[in-house]
Amino acid sequence: MSEHPDMNGAESLVRTLLAGGVDICFTNPGTSEMHFVAALDKVPGMRCVLGLFEGVLTGAADGYYRMAGKPASTLLHLGPGLANGLANLHNAKKANSGVVNVVGEHTTYHIKHDAPLTSDIEGVARPMSHWVRTSLSSLDVAADGAAAIEAATQAPGQIATLILPADTAWGPAEKVVTARPAPPRATVNESAVKGAAEMLSNGKKATLLLAGPALTEEGLQIAGRIAGKTGCGLLSEGANARLARGAGLPQVLRIPFVVDMAVEMLKDAGQLVLVGAKPPVAFFGYPGKPSLLYQEGTPMTRLANVEYDIIAALEALEAELGAQNSEMAHVAEAGRPDKPSGEPTLDNLAAVMGNMLPEGAIVVDESVTTGRGFFPATAGAARHDWLNNRGGSIGFGMPVAIGAAVAAPDRKVVLLEGDGSGMYTVQSLWTMARENLDVTTIVFSNRSYKILRGELTNVGVQNPGPRAIDMLSLERPDLGWVDMAKGMGVDGEQVSDCEGLMRAMEAGLQTDGPYLIDLVM
Amino acid sequence: MSEHPDMNGAESLVRTLLAGGVDICFTNPGTSEMHFVAALDKVPGMRCVLGLFEGVLTGAADGYYRMAGKPASTLLHLGPGLANGLANLHNAKKANSGVVNVVGEHTTYHIKHDAPLTSDIEGVARPMSHWVRTSLSSLDVAADGAAAIEAATQAPGQIATLILPADTAWGPAEKVVTARPAPPRATVNESAVKGAAEMLSNGKKATLLLAGPALTEEGLQIAGRIAGKTGCGLLSEGANARLARGAGLPQVLRIPFVVDMAVEMLKDAGQLVLVGAKPPVAFFGYPGKPSLLYQEGTPMTRLANVEYDIIAALEALEAELGAQNSEMAHVAEAGRPDKPSGEPTLDNLAAVMGNMLPEGAIVVDESVTTGRGFFPATAGAARHDWLNNRGGSIGFGMPVAIGAAVAAPDRKVVLLEGDGSGMYTVQSLWTMARENLDVTTIVFSNRSYKILRGELTNVGVQNPGPRAIDMLSLERPDLGWVDMAKGMGVDGEQVSDCEGLMRAMEAGLQTDGPYLIDLVM
Repeated sequence: MSEHPDMNGAESLVRTLLAGGVDICFTNPGTSEMHFVAALDKVPGMRCVLGLFEGVLTGAADGYYRMAGKPASTLLHLGPGLANGLANLHNAKKANSGVVNVVGEHTTYHIKHDAPLTSDIEGVARPMSHWVRTSLSSLDVAADGAAAIEAATQAPGQIATLILPADTAWGPAEKVVTARPAPPRATVNESAVKGAAEMLSNGKKATLLLAGPALTEEGLQIAGRIAGKTGCGLLSEGANARLARGAGLPQVLRIPFVVDMAVEMLKDAGQLVLVGAKPPVAFFGYPGKPSLLYQEGTPMTRLANVEYDIIAALEALEAELGAQNSEMAHVAEAGRPDKPSGEPTLDNLAAVMGNMLPEGAIVVDESVTTGRGFFPATAGAARHDWLNNRGGSIGFGMPVAIGAAVAAPDRKVVLLEGDGSGMYTVQSLWTMARENLDVTTIVFSNRSYKILRGELTNVGVQNPGPRAIDMLSLERPDLGWVDMAKGMGVDGEQVSDCEGLMRAMEAGLQTDGPYLIDLVM
Repeated sequence: MSEHPDMNGAESLVRTLLAGGVDICFTNPGTSEMHFVAALDKVPGMRCVLGLFEGVLTGAADGYYRMAGKPASTLLHLGPGLANGLANLHNAKKANSGVVNVVGEHTTYHIKHDAPLTSDIEGVARPMSHWVRTSLSSLDVAADGAAAIEAATQAPGQIATLILPADTAWGPAEKVVTARPAPPRATVNESAVKGAAEMLSNGKKATLLLAGPALTEEGLQIAGRIAGKTGCGLLSEGANARLARGAGLPQVLRIPFVVDMAVEMLKDAGQLVLVGAKPPVAFFGYPGKPSLLYQEGTPMTRLANVEYDIIAALEALEAELGAQNSEMAHVAEAGRPDKPSGEPTLDNLAAVMGNMLPEGAIVVDESVTTGRGFFPATAGAARHDWLNNRGGSIGFGMPVAIGAAVAAPDRKVVLLEGDGSGMYTVQSLWTMARENLDVTTIVFSNRSYKILRGELTNVGVQNPGPRAIDMLSLERPDLGWVDMAKGMGVDGEQVSDCEGLMRAMEAGLQTDGPYLIDLVM
């Protein structure tokens, strides 16, 4: 006899999610998900966050995983609801974020009738999911839910998509299933450690290329001591899921987006020790430019893949090198730039960020072209985390800021957003208001897809004409970000110089809820 | 020697699209699409309409096809850009709208490096496409583009997705390929005509269930004469791609969304003659309710599938019955309801629509619960077309309104939009402003996913608790539609009674550009 009398499949799934530590659900339900929604009142403990567009929800789950270190669930409405969430699932997948998607489906016996919302949901899920299953019985859905949690909590995190037909949700259930905890991360073998140690000791220039858990405070401190002992450099991929930064921590540079700059940086890097990172490749292929950013024949050794216990691997390498008591190299000294004034040049904006970034800030960076140079000026600020888009699908910033704020309610989220990229998931602002999330958003309104102006040249287009340029312009009409934010319940203001920006940031940082600054550039 | 010297693959594709009659491109490009964008200045004749989110573009292509009767193209950025457009491609697919999607891809040699934006684009495309091809050479892309046009222009229309690697776009091309015109629609055989005629003449109650081209003025007039001769009823599926309406045309009722009402209507309908329609099924499966809306054993005969020449089939049936000179039955008499006053009840709103709908209006209906009863009051208005969502994925209305306005610039588009559904593709407002599209939008702000309140009961949830109800509420905070519209360059006003609504509609109908009315209910 069940300990939960009259439990249906949906309730058994909610209880299974909670038993597996999944206690957040980013939600946009429809008819087929109503039993899951109804179960929320019967089962305490699941926090549901409503979004008005599914891309908000999947991006929020990505941001949540990055800060909480465990998956959230999403609740999506059939194939099209999942489809709306795919782009940010792509980004989450590339960031190794674990997510448990629950996608409603028609009742099993209704699917064959090809009703309006019928589609191949598994087909929609597969390109952006590591694990896909349709739960065919209300008696099995708890076990299927536990399997989804186990898939999502792997190292690295995975996208698990559980499809829930309506009769699976409303039919009778007997049990709750507790997901097994994720197996421990694998330990690297001795030869990998020795190989890395030899490369770092052979007297030639070498660099640690760090990713994943190597970019936590703990990982960076070990890497810093290794650098102190061996003189190696520290570098990361172009975009990081989460990078710990600030005064007292070793500084890590990112490989630039621009291919020529990246190639030069990697020439200087010398031999490469891969610590959770892959051999670096260009974001796009361009005519006459290489796909691989390193020189052919660059000596390279892999300390650990991203799924390994990277901290243990770094510790083993540190021990092998006898670096445990070495002084850290590349440490950022405490220090902030002076307040700038006047025009919001890119250098001035970097100075504003460096001057004002509060302790414990979570910086979600979708500033695209504007923020590329923000690292040096912010390196000596108080400790903070910097989150970038590893999947390259824009519309990432606002949703990830939501998830980060839900996961870390005591920290300030500073969202650096482009005007073009912000529009893809602009509905996020409403969820920020509804949940009173502590997010200060700065929209860099350059009123164009500015990156594409450069990309026209990069792909070899000479003298683009007015019609091409018009397709990259957001000027006709100008976007009124303050009005849009107000319409979704978020206060804000428009500014156009450094003084205004700093005054507005002060206002945003002082408030406990969302605030939006439209910086006209 | 090419007649277009220095032509690259992208230019050959643009010229091929134009040669095939595809002269609209709904566009949201990125790096991999820059050569296509650059070709626009070299090749005259392609109208490019920029959108800030891909669901705007695919929905616009759907609306364009419905009004222009031919496909538009879309230009989308890799797998995630296509993914953002899938939900409205789903709707377009269910509406039998032809669309040619051009989706950029990495250069062929870059794909294997698993760069950030790499994904299985064909996998993303397949669930919502009838035809998918990756064009692997700049020498072949014109032929591939022509094949895509041929796929899209089939009867019924199809979703064709052509994936365009960047080197296919920038490599040399030699020729432009003119797509073959669509083959003529198939003619139904004599036995189908005779079967339908016999059913309509056997003395029992019968109804024509009409879809596709049967719902044009021409189709309805023939159906009306058949009804005049035989006494049969006229009915359509729950949602129609395009339904001609107004004084002097036979009235067609839609099968209701609510299962019990639909079952009753179909009991009354008697025998069914399917004219482009499928045997009617429920939108969702519900506990204890049937999937099929007709009674078991209902006599049913199929005059024509939707891909057949339905007008010719109706003419053959008319001739078989000797109805060519019969008087049309079910004709809507000219007449408009009086102006209502006071509270915006559903009946009053129907009266406002019936009173004010201008001649030639294109009504795009995503009013969900609010507009279900608008048909009787609008039947006697001047001629207009009524467009519904056949795929059921919300976020359909605003984009389809864009496409309809682009296709029919001399007609007024009246968009009936829910507040919940409008938010999915709210970025549409900016494109309406940019292109100065003649769209008057009425947002029915009931501040909830109101349909789901009923659906909770329909799926058997008794006494939903406060947390469930909170997931269906859009009140915390209220959406400020006028502010959002202003932020995207669209004028508007908020109203709360019939007088205000009529005044605002007058303002909207008078202007040549977009206007938004936020009706607080």
